[in-house]
Amino acid sequence: MVSQIKSFLFLFIVLVLSKTVISARKPSKSQSKPCKNFVLYYHDIMFGVDDVQNATSAAVTNPPGLGNFKFGKLVIFDDPVTIDKNYQSEPVARAQGFYFYDMKNDYNAWFSYTLVFNSTQHKGTLNIMGADLMMEKTRDLSVVGGTGDFFMSRGIVTFETDTFEGAKYFRVKMDIKLYDCY
Amino acid sequence: MVSQIKSFLFLFIVLVLSKTVISARKPSKSQSKPCKNFVLYYHDIMFGVDDVQNATSAAVTNPPGLGNFKFGKLVIFDDPVTIDKNYQSEPVARAQGFYFYDMKNDYNAWFSYTLVFNSTQHKGTLNIMGADLMMEKTRDLSVVGGTGDFFMSRGIVTFETDTFEGAKYFRVKMDIKLYDCY
Amino acid sequence: MVSQIKSFLFLFIVLVLSKTVISARKPSKSQSKPCKNFVLYYHDIMFGVDDVQNATSAAVTNPPGLGNFKFGKLVIFDDPVTIDKNYQSEPVARAQGFYFYDMKNDYNAWFSYTLVFNSTQHKGTLNIMGADLMMEKTRDLSVVGGTGDFFMSRGIVTFETDTFEGAKYFRVKMDIKLYDCY
Repeated sequence: MVSQIKSFLFLFIVLVLSKTVISARKPSKSQSKPCKNFVLYYHDIMFGVDDVQNATSAAVTNPPGLGNFKFGKLVIFDDPVTIDKNYQSEPVARAQGFYFYDMKNDYNAWFSYTLVFNSTQHKGTLNIMGADLMMEKTRDLSVVGGTGDFFMSRGIVTFETDTFEGAKYFRVKMDIKLYDCY
Repeated sequence: MVSQIKSFLFLFIVLVLSKTVISARKPSKSQSKPCKNFVLYYHDIMFGVDDVQNATSAAVTNPPGLGNFKFGKLVIFDDPVTIDKNYQSEPVARAQGFYFYDMKNDYNAWFSYTLVFNSTQHKGTLNIMGADLMMEKTRDLSVVGGTGDFFMSRGIVTFETDTFEGAKYFRVKMDIKLYDCY
Repeated sequence: MVSQIKSFLFLFIVLVLSKTVISARKPSKSQSKPCKNFVLYYHDIMFGVDDVQNATSAAVTNPPGLGNFKFGKLVIFDDPVTIDKNYQSEPVARAQGFYFYDMKNDYNAWFSYTLVFNSTQHKGTLNIMGADLMMEKTRDLSVVGGTGDFFMSRGIVTFETDTFEGAKYFRVKMDIKLYDCY
């Protein structure tokens, strides 16, 4: 009987310790598997270069002249977000927010925006901010909060420029990885 | 004696497992009870429509003409926040931050701001960002951080437009629900 | 034998409970020790007062006239961040983002920015936002996310104005305390 208790205790220790580790929600440095992961494409179509009918973003400040890379140009957007690369596909979300250029000797940007999902599949929002280090092939921004289906989410969005057509249009691949899901 | 140990072990399992579940801090999809919940009213009084004496916010950009719904108008504010609907009541906090309009075919906005509490009751801040989907009766923004009495808080703020008087004044009911409290 | 089991059980309870408490990640109100803590200096050198060669920030809006304390002046920056007070020291990071003034009867500001680390010591970013209550000796902003070496971090940044030279230059001591490390 006593040896049965001992076996039981051993199993129990393993069970509890493993549970405790899970509850600590500490991914290793190798950044464990996200609880949600999906790829979306963001399409920015600039007003003034394109017309009111097509445009989904517009500059609201003029660069003050600090260098030749649009430093200080602030753009507000309500951009379509799709699951494929075609900006005319049915959007699965809108990206609402702003970015600005912020480097005097190269192109570099900073984003803060909300992904607004309103489909039969997903309702809710993800709130995102971070530096868009355009000279890097990929760069990570933070998902700092979420609502609705994404209640209290946190994670990482990896940006990769997919294409751009001068000042008129650019497309960014957003690889969204959520590590806190509820 | 052995049966006493067994009873004790059973109780202990229940105790530990329940504690472990609590420690995981994972509200169900039904979005369990917040650890703090309070309602405040936000009052925005626009400079240029009202005068310096009364105004608490001001536009700093001109809409560039993408549609007829103020797309690109960016407003910076230091607005009073009260517990009742009277904007002249003693404020319990200030809301400091900005919003802008961002839709070309309807009114829609985006907010990022800090609630600054500095009373005998509360000292500290809550940092908030998200889309203000004005066509919805209620809409959720994220509380992404806090300081002081709200150290490291996270949660949801539900906006509901309470009233507006043209471009001069509007009042928003903010239902603040914190799910991470320390 | 049974008494040995009892001793073992007691030790085990202590072990598991202490682990469970840790896993709950709830610092007391006294705000327990951060998992990472470092001090950096932020240097803001204003374009228009200083020249293109030296400047690292620029105003992109004009104050609309609500009071005499620059209400509505929005500044975009790519500022050097160093470990000592000399703005010409080798930067350990860049601070990329924006601030604006937002009070009509005193100087007061609001910040949102990214610390971009790209050295042999640290690679990654910290995303920060909050009110800069300039009339206070120290004021707390929120670290709302991180990437790379700072994967998913959260915490507090305490600002303290270290010096300022009119409108041309100011230096802020940033005491960075992370409470969520991975």
